[in-house]
Amino acid sequence: MIPNWLLQRSLLTPERIALSFEEEQWTFKEANDKAHILAKKLTANGVKPRSRVAIYAPSHPDIIWMMYACMHLQCEMVLLNLRLTDKELAYQIDDAAVDFILVEDLLVGKLPVNKVPSLTFNEIYTSHEEGFILANEWDDDQTMTIMYTSGTTGYPKGVRQTVGNHVSSATSSVYNMGLVEDDCWLCTMPLFHISGFSMLAKSLLHGVEIKLYPKFSVKEIVNELLAGTVTRMSVVSVTLERIISELEARNAKVSPKFLTMLAGGGPVPIDYLKRAEQLGLNVSQTYGMTETSSQTATLSSTDALRKLGSAGKALFFNQIRIDGAEKAFDQGEILIRGPHVTPGYIGRFSDKSSQENGWLHSGDIGYLDDEGYLYVVDRRSDLIISGGENIYPAEIENVLVSHDAVREAGVCGVENEKWGQVPNAFVVLKERVNVDELLAFCRGHLANYKVPHQIYIVSELPRNGSNKLLRRKLKELLNKE
Amino acid sequence: MIPNWLLQRSLLTPERIALSFEEEQWTFKEANDKAHILAKKLTANGVKPRSRVAIYAPSHPDIIWMMYACMHLQCEMVLLNLRLTDKELAYQIDDAAVDFILVEDLLVGKLPVNKVPSLTFNEIYTSHEEGFILANEWDDDQTMTIMYTSGTTGYPKGVRQTVGNHVSSATSSVYNMGLVEDDCWLCTMPLFHISGFSMLAKSLLHGVEIKLYPKFSVKEIVNELLAGTVTRMSVVSVTLERIISELEARNAKVSPKFLTMLAGGGPVPIDYLKRAEQLGLNVSQTYGMTETSSQTATLSSTDALRKLGSAGKALFFNQIRIDGAEKAFDQGEILIRGPHVTPGYIGRFSDKSSQENGWLHSGDIGYLDDEGYLYVVDRRSDLIISGGENIYPAEIENVLVSHDAVREAGVCGVENEKWGQVPNAFVVLKERVNVDELLAFCRGHLANYKVPHQIYIVSELPRNGSNKLLRRKLKELLNKE
Repeated sequence: MIPNWLLQRSLLTPERIALSFEEEQWTFKEANDKAHILAKKLTANGVKPRSRVAIYAPSHPDIIWMMYACMHLQCEMVLLNLRLTDKELAYQIDDAAVDFILVEDLLVGKLPVNKVPSLTFNEIYTSHEEGFILANEWDDDQTMTIMYTSGTTGYPKGVRQTVGNHVSSATSSVYNMGLVEDDCWLCTMPLFHISGFSMLAKSLLHGVEIKLYPKFSVKEIVNELLAGTVTRMSVVSVTLERIISELEARNAKVSPKFLTMLAGGGPVPIDYLKRAEQLGLNVSQTYGMTETSSQTATLSSTDALRKLGSAGKALFFNQIRIDGAEKAFDQGEILIRGPHVTPGYIGRFSDKSSQENGWLHSGDIGYLDDEGYLYVVDRRSDLIISGGENIYPAEIENVLVSHDAVREAGVCGVENEKWGQVPNAFVVLKERVNVDELLAFCRGHLANYKVPHQIYIVSELPRNGSNKLLRRKLKELLNKE
Repeated sequence: MIPNWLLQRSLLTPERIALSFEEEQWTFKEANDKAHILAKKLTANGVKPRSRVAIYAPSHPDIIWMMYACMHLQCEMVLLNLRLTDKELAYQIDDAAVDFILVEDLLVGKLPVNKVPSLTFNEIYTSHEEGFILANEWDDDQTMTIMYTSGTTGYPKGVRQTVGNHVSSATSSVYNMGLVEDDCWLCTMPLFHISGFSMLAKSLLHGVEIKLYPKFSVKEIVNELLAGTVTRMSVVSVTLERIISELEARNAKVSPKFLTMLAGGGPVPIDYLKRAEQLGLNVSQTYGMTETSSQTATLSSTDALRKLGSAGKALFFNQIRIDGAEKAFDQGEILIRGPHVTPGYIGRFSDKSSQENGWLHSGDIGYLDDEGYLYVVDRRSDLIISGGENIYPAEIENVLVSHDAVREAGVCGVENEKWGQVPNAFVVLKERVNVDELLAFCRGHLANYKVPHQIYIVSELPRNGSNKLLRRKLKELLNKE
């Protein structure tokens, strides 16, 4: 059992700042009070304790209060990615079998046609209230969040993250990075991602402030870094580079009060690391996934240049091993174990186990060096990471082959200066069609970041003896074209 | 499951300093290597994984390496208090039914006659080695330590503290006090007490250094505080006062690098708090007991003067409530709940539950104010706390009435400038005996700190209608004498 985070935090440090947004600030007591009232309003609208509720809203205090209200109701929150298309949203809402959709008013029109009752934030705010039984403590095993992650089959899987998963992640984070008196996370990460949501968990558990930005705004962020008004931040390579460039343009060093720049979504190029060092910016590279409720390994900034390309070492409460490896540097699938690992999936994958003998099979290939540092060699199932978003080739391929003119499709990631990687597609046609039409078709079915940057028409796709698509060979095709 | 602390810490931060003692230092890798070798030597001497092993040694690196070796072997360590008499030691060794006693060579002669095989540190160090199966991870429920605490019945109870208890305590501590890069605990607390042992747990879990002192040496301690070479320390009122006086004598302020002076064992007098503030010394008062594996509530130094006499608020992962209280300020027994609470006792109390519906009954009386701050009004069962050591009146009374000349005995605590409290005794005689003889008798049966400072001969003891001894009335007798 774990004390209800909101009640406990509001009891322990009621007057400490929980959230800043633009010119406004809220204490933990205010945050808890807001959440409590909203939970009563949700109750008045039929939301029951432990209901499963989808949330569809941009980064703004309102989505945080709604999430906190759902926590009080012990709801399972399905966090919908704002970039999803109509069809992707419909799939997730259907697969999760949610009881309600909480939606920001301006986004109502973007919801797909469906049979689930939806409540707009305005409807909730202006509702009357009804009492409910407030839980003083929560089960470790209680599912708190569900986040969809694209699977190797092309069908996104709803990953359950429990109260215990989030607590373990937040604790491992502190054991790794420390916790100081005026800690403050600058949040520009989407709150529907584990990278963003994990900051809310940290805020409530550690009692630290979040400065929320609705989106990545490099000038404002750099102002904070220079002023030392924040201490930690999460980025991906593409946003890190923009911050570094802005600092260089201003010819300024970050405040020594700023402690950690946590960089996820693949290794950071050496050039960025060297420039960051010049600027006094401590970059800690991390490795994690939705299934591990955020970080599972972290490379401290002091090791950044000595262990280039490494994702660091396991956090304290978890273990990492390489499947089949007998010695250092042997490559194999990265296996992860610990209290931060999801117990499993919901919906159509609910009977698919996430673990084997307690070990999560990440699908990623890597090795451990002789000092125990993890190196990720190849992303799981040809995963493409573009600006921090995960893209599975199979999902795009499924869309392409659903077009009448396409017989076969293969997708791979291609290096891109701005986004790290972008997807490119190769198609074998059944009948004539032009590329622009295929791109438009993709845009109708896929979130923008998943739409291939290039589609090549080819006569055949590289396959192995058993006719399995060899996605890694697609890049070689590119060079031949 | 929790990773083997020693292996994980040695993997994560092998080169960081684990322990300093006098002029020597050891890294976490060295500590783990030492422990591993000693575990093999213990194995060669018949100690098996999960054996129950008593440890009897002073504060010195050797006892730490022995404890760490026992951790590798997943032994249940019964930590014997150095101040116990022959008879008290014999009781604990017998009650715990230990398989082995590990004893520092100079203390062999102090062990009572018993049938348990003992191994001196020197025997272990000079032994050959034998392999054993090293566990990579430990069960949360595995008992790591057993510490005897005097009970209300006068018979000390062996309190089990599990791996999970210690982890939870160390985590709550960080959530409360933070964790900084160069954290270092100055340890003058006995390692057989939870106050000292919990520092070892913190060191391994958080990866922080311990500077070990074999005893409380005020000049050396103050040197460290002034130099900022340590960041945290645990004290009781009596040692705090000596530190304050020494700082005042030197007319010096502590280094701002020193962060937390954790004061346990009863409230700190206001005079000390005010003087500490003048010296820049941040005193955090705590409330805890052997059954809660160290701290359960802590008052931050910023609240020290505003909430005089309070023990602060619950740490994050636990809850405190007052039995039967309906509103703030209602007094009752202090109940505690959380993952840091012992699962129970061993030996003759093994069937006595430590909890009721998940709540530990502390036996202490207290209240929560309107902001949730805990105030301890009366110690459990007239507990006397003398220089940080717990003394139960019943234990002393049992000894006194075992003397041929004594019919009845009653013991209570009396305020004492140096020790906080000391025990005083009242006896009703069967036959003539002089007080010096009774004192000598006590010294033969009780650790020195438990021997009454005064013994008064009286004609009757204050009792209630059902003839129950009213220990609180004993003090009034004192005033009448």
